[in-house]
Amino acid sequence: MIHTDSLRLADWTTRGRSSAGQDLMAVATSGDVISFCLGLPAPELFPSDLRRVARSVLDQPSALQYGVPCERLKSQVVSLMARRGVRCTEEEILITSGAQQGISLALTVLVERGSEVLCEEHTYFGFQQAMQSFDAELLTVPTDLSEGLDVEAVERLLARGARPRLLYVVPTGHNPLGVNMSAGARTRLVEIARRYGVAILEDDPYGFLSYDGEPEPPLRALDEDWVIYVGSFSKLIAPSLRVGWLVAPRNVVRHLGVAKAAADIETATLGQRLVSAYLDAVDLDARLSLLRGGYRVRRDAMLGALCDNLPGARWSHPSGGFFVWVELQDSIDTAEMLPAAVREGRVAYVPGSEFRVGGARGRDCRSLRLCFSTNTPGQIAEGMVRLRHVVERLRH
Amino acid sequence: MIHTDSLRLADWTTRGRSSAGQDLMAVATSGDVISFCLGLPAPELFPSDLRRVARSVLDQPSALQYGVPCERLKSQVVSLMARRGVRCTEEEILITSGAQQGISLALTVLVERGSEVLCEEHTYFGFQQAMQSFDAELLTVPTDLSEGLDVEAVERLLARGARPRLLYVVPTGHNPLGVNMSAGARTRLVEIARRYGVAILEDDPYGFLSYDGEPEPPLRALDEDWVIYVGSFSKLIAPSLRVGWLVAPRNVVRHLGVAKAAADIETATLGQRLVSAYLDAVDLDARLSLLRGGYRVRRDAMLGALCDNLPGARWSHPSGGFFVWVELQDSIDTAEMLPAAVREGRVAYVPGSEFRVGGARGRDCRSLRLCFSTNTPGQIAEGMVRLRHVVERLRH
Repeated sequence: MIHTDSLRLADWTTRGRSSAGQDLMAVATSGDVISFCLGLPAPELFPSDLRRVARSVLDQPSALQYGVPCERLKSQVVSLMARRGVRCTEEEILITSGAQQGISLALTVLVERGSEVLCEEHTYFGFQQAMQSFDAELLTVPTDLSEGLDVEAVERLLARGARPRLLYVVPTGHNPLGVNMSAGARTRLVEIARRYGVAILEDDPYGFLSYDGEPEPPLRALDEDWVIYVGSFSKLIAPSLRVGWLVAPRNVVRHLGVAKAAADIETATLGQRLVSAYLDAVDLDARLSLLRGGYRVRRDAMLGALCDNLPGARWSHPSGGFFVWVELQDSIDTAEMLPAAVREGRVAYVPGSEFRVGGARGRDCRSLRLCFSTNTPGQIAEGMVRLRHVVERLRH
Repeated sequence: MIHTDSLRLADWTTRGRSSAGQDLMAVATSGDVISFCLGLPAPELFPSDLRRVARSVLDQPSALQYGVPCERLKSQVVSLMARRGVRCTEEEILITSGAQQGISLALTVLVERGSEVLCEEHTYFGFQQAMQSFDAELLTVPTDLSEGLDVEAVERLLARGARPRLLYVVPTGHNPLGVNMSAGARTRLVEIARRYGVAILEDDPYGFLSYDGEPEPPLRALDEDWVIYVGSFSKLIAPSLRVGWLVAPRNVVRHLGVAKAAADIETATLGQRLVSAYLDAVDLDARLSLLRGGYRVRRDAMLGALCDNLPGARWSHPSGGFFVWVELQDSIDTAEMLPAAVREGRVAYVPGSEFRVGGARGRDCRSLRLCFSTNTPGQIAEGMVRLRHVVERLRH
């Protein structure tokens, strides 16, 4: 008889890297710290009429019961996608508990143990977390701060024989880099995916936000067979509802539905109904224009404050999303600087190395991600002055 | 260059068994069919004051934002568990998007590819679905219609050298069998788990419902180290909120939290706040007594109707849960009978073979699961007369 002292856990649980940054984020959200850490929507931009909508939804007794996926919501998603130049039908849509679940379900259906997955050197932390329980190898390609994902690097990898099960990419409002892929790069990427038979997992939570004219259409507008699209209502309406969606080929949606039922049976009926009733009630053009205007002002405040306070640094110029990526000119280690920034400077950010796939740290040790979406322009200005003081103190 | 015609999916997607029963369930919920298929709570027993509670929750702007897990809700769960004789702290609790996610997360943290998992021959379909994407072997033990899980069969398996990563069990209000494990069997099972070092995944969505006095304490009340407990508010409050919880050792909760963040970031803040505010407002003793009374009447209506209409059959006598398991005396195949039952008889049930692990069918081909929770006593009586006519028509 083998006796063990405590529960035996799956191997992946021993491999999760620890993150001092994540612990600091909890600190950073308390007290008088101005936090540029988390990608939270601006509270001022939450819909004011959600209470009224909730009342009408809760009047329907069926809103409390288990339910089949809300068909009305699916057709509303079809219309939303049409705004982005995407043609799809209700049968190609799966409602999810937010975009993160969309990513997780797509991985469950596409990734095999031992297979390869391709992504950018710096990418969304939630994708890296979702990959943890799969025994898959992460291949990476660089991302340029103005053009986005290095498409030619993808082609070189595939030409050399790599056959990843999917390529994960955030083409619009990149998290953490704050760049958009150019139209040319998008066309070329989809062409390569088709040629080599590689699925693209397109994560697009910020796709409806654009601060300098209409954004490029998503990759899903360019290809229906190889792109699986992940959408979210968290930034359009409110994150606390946890409602998002996937657009995928019909046969893939069927398997995604099985994985979804296994994961949590269904997305809260109440959340689905609230989103659907809200979309019925809202003037979406006005709503989008309010959001774009509100976040544009914050983006501009952040870029202005960077010019004023860190003139020697380099940074991305986001036309979408919530983030600016900054590379300090000084050889300051931003992970080492963080505790002092929070405790003495009362300002917080995420060190760039946190987003590095595999956790390796190269020249990104002097980079950091700033979120401009949550704070008001006044708070942004004040927070950036604080950040300058922290950097200056370390320099002297 | 390897060219494939379409997306390559993970191997498990080819192994999911198809289910005629599941398709019929969709049919069964429409029109004038009296359905005993799905384990839906009685709509009449949903809380009438949830609208008022929702209004106060939506008055807090933070209810729309991403949030840290609701600490108040965790301490409310601690109190709830104390009612069942379970001692635990907030650090041993993870809030989940319903019990199904609790099961799915526990499997992610405990089950390795290639490992063994132990369960009952007939068990909850959602557990079997959650197991699908793991390449694990399912070992089974029989379950007795009066005593529940055959504990001695578990011991024999382990004594012969099997070392499953976990044993999945529904000790109270078994789905689909409608039995409760006896006090003696519970004590013995926990003892065996400890001796052989096997984790128990205790699924307890119906644990607070009991129709014949207080139910036996859950397995987690008997052991803190080897039992992971899955709880749910779906039957206590409403399923559409998708809020449940796990109780597990602290070091396991940490890994469950990582798996949770990877799965969907967090359970909808709105749902968590609604549940918490409801628990603050409700007289829980009165609520439990209303639920127990309401479901007892339905259970009694179902058992009475079985005596009246299928006197030659055998069935379980549930003291908890939503289900009765019936074995017909005739050699009728209940899966084959179902289409006629729905189309001509206008009554629906789930064939017992649907719950059979691995889908193999033995003598369970003449068994069926009836849910008594959704319909009123009058509808139950009418539905059972219809079922009798279907059986009689086949017999003659």
